[in-house]
Amino acid sequence: MTVLDETHDASTRSFVAAANDPQTDFPIQNLPFGVVRRRGSDESWRGAIAIGDQVLDLAALARTGLVSGPAGAALARCAESTLNAFMALGATAASQVRRAVFELLREGQPARERVVACLISAAAVKHALPASIGDYTDFYASIHHATSVGRMFRPDQPLMPNYKWVPIGYHGRASSIGVSPQRFHRPLGQRLPPGATEPVLGPTQRLDYELELGILIGRGNALGERVPIAQADEHVFGMCLLNDWSAREVQAWEYQPLGPFLAKNFATTLSPWLVTLEALAPFRLPWTRPSSDPAPLRYLDAPQVRGAGAIDINLEATLETAAMRARGAAPYTLSRSNFRHSYWSFAQLVAHHTVNGCNLQPGDLLGTGTQSGPADDEAGSLLELTSGGKRPLTLPDGSMHGFLDDGDVVTFHAWCEREGYRRIGFGACVGEVLPVVPLDDW
Amino acid sequence: MTVLDETHDASTRSFVAAANDPQTDFPIQNLPFGVVRRRGSDESWRGAIAIGDQVLDLAALARTGLVSGPAGAALARCAESTLNAFMALGATAASQVRRAVFELLREGQPARERVVACLISAAAVKHALPASIGDYTDFYASIHHATSVGRMFRPDQPLMPNYKWVPIGYHGRASSIGVSPQRFHRPLGQRLPPGATEPVLGPTQRLDYELELGILIGRGNALGERVPIAQADEHVFGMCLLNDWSAREVQAWEYQPLGPFLAKNFATTLSPWLVTLEALAPFRLPWTRPSSDPAPLRYLDAPQVRGAGAIDINLEATLETAAMRARGAAPYTLSRSNFRHSYWSFAQLVAHHTVNGCNLQPGDLLGTGTQSGPADDEAGSLLELTSGGKRPLTLPDGSMHGFLDDGDVVTFHAWCEREGYRRIGFGACVGEVLPVVPLDDW
Repeated sequence: MTVLDETHDASTRSFVAAANDPQTDFPIQNLPFGVVRRRGSDESWRGAIAIGDQVLDLAALARTGLVSGPAGAALARCAESTLNAFMALGATAASQVRRAVFELLREGQPARERVVACLISAAAVKHALPASIGDYTDFYASIHHATSVGRMFRPDQPLMPNYKWVPIGYHGRASSIGVSPQRFHRPLGQRLPPGATEPVLGPTQRLDYELELGILIGRGNALGERVPIAQADEHVFGMCLLNDWSAREVQAWEYQPLGPFLAKNFATTLSPWLVTLEALAPFRLPWTRPSSDPAPLRYLDAPQVRGAGAIDINLEATLETAAMRARGAAPYTLSRSNFRHSYWSFAQLVAHHTVNGCNLQPGDLLGTGTQSGPADDEAGSLLELTSGGKRPLTLPDGSMHGFLDDGDVVTFHAWCEREGYRRIGFGACVGEVLPVVPLDDW
Repeated sequence: MTVLDETHDASTRSFVAAANDPQTDFPIQNLPFGVVRRRGSDESWRGAIAIGDQVLDLAALARTGLVSGPAGAALARCAESTLNAFMALGATAASQVRRAVFELLREGQPARERVVACLISAAAVKHALPASIGDYTDFYASIHHATSVGRMFRPDQPLMPNYKWVPIGYHGRASSIGVSPQRFHRPLGQRLPPGATEPVLGPTQRLDYELELGILIGRGNALGERVPIAQADEHVFGMCLLNDWSAREVQAWEYQPLGPFLAKNFATTLSPWLVTLEALAPFRLPWTRPSSDPAPLRYLDAPQVRGAGAIDINLEATLETAAMRARGAAPYTLSRSNFRHSYWSFAQLVAHHTVNGCNLQPGDLLGTGTQSGPADDEAGSLLELTSGGKRPLTLPDGSMHGFLDDGDVVTFHAWCEREGYRRIGFGACVGEVLPVVPLDDW
């Protein structure tokens, strides 16, 4: 488990003024990693760290020679077009780079001018996915989401008997994962119209978002090796936001018996910055479950996990329709929730995934599943917020809104707050729904 | 659709004597692609083509300069350590290389000596996976398998109402795919013992194989683009054998509601050679379904598919136990089947997978699902052959055999035969079960 140290000290200030704004997502205590290049350029993609309203170009920083020794060797891998090789080095190397950058961005840093030369305005960069994602696994770790969705798909048995024993997960599609802001066309799919006995093909009419966190694997494990739960922290590089876009009526028709497929593999959006476990250290909480629930099997249990397995991360989803955008209205808050409500911790997800010897590789992505909280208004999808579309939302202008319309933009934010610590944010995860590509080409 | 031409002419002979053996998998009419290096060496991996008992080193061939023009440009990509870039060039480029190699390996070829210098004994090479597999999707295309397995998991509803409309598929794990011969440890997993209310963790006691074919994508499609069914052939590079190892009691306990996960992601074995669609052209058959079944939706139907959508590929699975190996006994034939029984054709799988805009990339793998035939003894898994373990097989020595034991070797073969054409084989797909890695390390 990561210990708290000077990089978490709220009194440390950066010479990047915007990083000292109490509301920034990116104070010097955060320092999340991403991959950028200048907007409109054909420069090489390279690693970067967010600081206030700037990004620190890690390829440029590596060239300054300001970072030497093991941290310098690790920093050199951040100059590559994906962070996979850097992430593969493990948590210690990531921590060395984060600490070196922390020193270089402090107020009073004597090498300030040479560091400033490596900064680019955040508004001037474009992002790529931080890692090449080999495999993407999506879990189902919120019992509140599992119960409320289960009630709609299977009224007789909302929560399966395995739920409290097995961290349920399935493999998702890696190729269609994109970085925020992602724009994608409304997908076609088969659906069985109500009362019909034969399906039809058409644009989905029940397009939804799912508010999730993504967990990026750092150091991998070889095929046949398990990651014991007490070592899971050492295999996780960091976290980001994840929107698991879903076509609900396609899902309902196709998902039995092998699970969701085309209903979810047309687009998945990640926020661009990976917030490290080290930056999240002040926000770890005891992991608990109701005493009436069964204790986890031994491979899913450990004192470390009991003590600090949950993470206090606030989550928020907002909606901006085309009409709202046209008149400059503020986005509508769909819901807020918190990752601490998750029934399964990230360490349990890693331990479960590898208990059979499955190999996780650097850059692999684990989704937490929709993080709905216990209250109805903490739900992380329109399926839940609108009771399956039966109770549309009333937007501030009085209009009704069910599932997603063309032109809708859904934005997620996440942040950690705790008395005595700086706010740690995740940046935004933005996605826009474009109209269906017409069928007349075939 | 590929037309028959001189590369399919059965009278053409190679100067590689073993390629003229009527029983070889690799006559000059086949020429499948793989990736090799000399056994025991640390040479670079590079592309190769199988011919009789030899492999043609395509990196060495490229260096000879014997192949020029567009075929030469395509051949240059075969020198790389994976075939992805070559596969991305599409079916025409693959055909150009295959035809150039066909000419160079013919009897009477004047450049024979220079080609011979590029041959390596098949016994002297080791294989890597032919492509870096970005995403792996496994389908469920045999209605016979779906019905008989469905009967065991859901006696009340063996075949779901969607089966005859939707080519059911789900995403599998790419990282744990290995090339034949693959050895893997028996996985641990959660199971619910009969009559119990709480699961236990332990080595799977119901380890099974699944006899499938793998379909490797050549030219990809961009996110948001569909591959119309009539163009599916142009996006498929070739086929190989696939063993979808499965832990049955883990599957039964975990699979609801999101599908199989740890029950299948601990190992998946591919045969090393990709047999091109061009080599399979003489074995295309009309694709039919019973007249009592619904016609496919339009996006899954096309005259080309009706006319030649099925492929006549014989499939065979054999078992060699440790005891059989110790006494030198011949492997036991578990079952034989044929891919022509598949309810869905490979073109339907490609068209369905992309109808929502999901992007398939060069080297992506589609599994056909277990290819059980209509008869009981044509089943492609022990789950089916032993009626869920209740009726163990009787091996030739009189011993009983249920699910897989440690030391068991399962081998698949596939081949095409048709009067007037040379036999086209796939080589072997071999996997061995090793004992579980003990738990005492944690």
